[in-house]
Amino acid sequence: MEIPPVVIDRLPLYTRALSALESEAREVVSSQELGTRLGVTPAQIRKDLSYFGRFGKQGRGYNVHKLLDELQRILGLDRQWRMALVGVGKLGRAILGYEGFTPQGFRIVQAFDTDPKRVGEQLNGLTVKSADELESALSANPVDVGIVAVPAEIAQSVINTLVKCGVRAILNYAPIAAQVPRGVHLKRIEPVLALQSMTYYLKNSRGPA
Amino acid sequence: MEIPPVVIDRLPLYTRALSALESEAREVVSSQELGTRLGVTPAQIRKDLSYFGRFGKQGRGYNVHKLLDELQRILGLDRQWRMALVGVGKLGRAILGYEGFTPQGFRIVQAFDTDPKRVGEQLNGLTVKSADELESALSANPVDVGIVAVPAEIAQSVINTLVKCGVRAILNYAPIAAQVPRGVHLKRIEPVLALQSMTYYLKNSRGPA
Repeated sequence: MEIPPVVIDRLPLYTRALSALESEAREVVSSQELGTRLGVTPAQIRKDLSYFGRFGKQGRGYNVHKLLDELQRILGLDRQWRMALVGVGKLGRAILGYEGFTPQGFRIVQAFDTDPKRVGEQLNGLTVKSADELESALSANPVDVGIVAVPAEIAQSVINTLVKCGVRAILNYAPIAAQVPRGVHLKRIEPVLALQSMTYYLKNSRGPA
Repeated sequence: MEIPPVVIDRLPLYTRALSALESEAREVVSSQELGTRLGVTPAQIRKDLSYFGRFGKQGRGYNVHKLLDELQRILGLDRQWRMALVGVGKLGRAILGYEGFTPQGFRIVQAFDTDPKRVGEQLNGLTVKSADELESALSANPVDVGIVAVPAEIAQSVINTLVKCGVRAILNYAPIAAQVPRGVHLKRIEPVLALQSMTYYLKNSRGPA
């Protein structure tokens, strides 16, 4: 069964909320409460989870630990994912220093740059390699995810190389609508583009609604 | 006329590509070439732009400078936008240091934190204020955009306060599906959630597609 991408996008939020509940030593949670925590209707939660089988009993709520376990397994969060970062400029360094990845099982294990001045540099325990070596380095040490933090002009070509190396999940920080072949997944993370599409609405309304 | 949000989301990408063309001293661009640069079909570009009037002549392409000017005006990118950052932990500091905002007209003019140890600190020329002062500080010096970089547990309450202060555009870095009333715009920027929804697909496929 093909599960709608919007459902998959919501599952990580469910695991966050369930982790929080687990750390509060909660054993059971209703779809009502989970919904309130997440800003999603209880009906939506029940429908989303129904794609993956039967969780919880009518009127009894969900077993926090079991549901969390199951969702982590479904999402592949019960294992470690290896990532390669391309681009170690200001943004790339912030990404390398970001502490949110490791606790969630995502680890940057290789770093590359196109600038010869940066190649050889030691950053967070990694030696920066030349982007020219992407293919050989990734065939010797494959990764699951590529993080692209290079300037817009070269982002598509870096993405093409990553795809050629067998990388099938890409986190793109460059401000382009990058293209990837079917079977490769790409998410764009770019704060300025997000801001720029909101200012349209600010400009076109008067005062708080 | 109500313009579809997906169209608005694409416009900033058009302005990026047009800026690049302008800096290459290009005067005219076809929807074909613009499409290739952006990974969008020429028909899509023509359709998107048709919401805003008539640009370019059949078979002549678009005047780069005029189209850029017009899109910047439409998106409100011809002015400065004032932003308040809430949360100056590791992530908030990276946001404060991000150099991509200012050249695009977005400036962080106030910074807040809930941790008393951080209040009073000088960061990037700003004095960190207590989050308790949000309402008074923002009523004295209103901002257009709120950036939320606080832990998940308090993110919704910070967002509620920002909304109460009249902020109508929020960039949320906290991993929650935050709720805002109608008329307030919110975009979520969170790399780990993006990764976690891609691993579902990695886990459920075998080898490069």
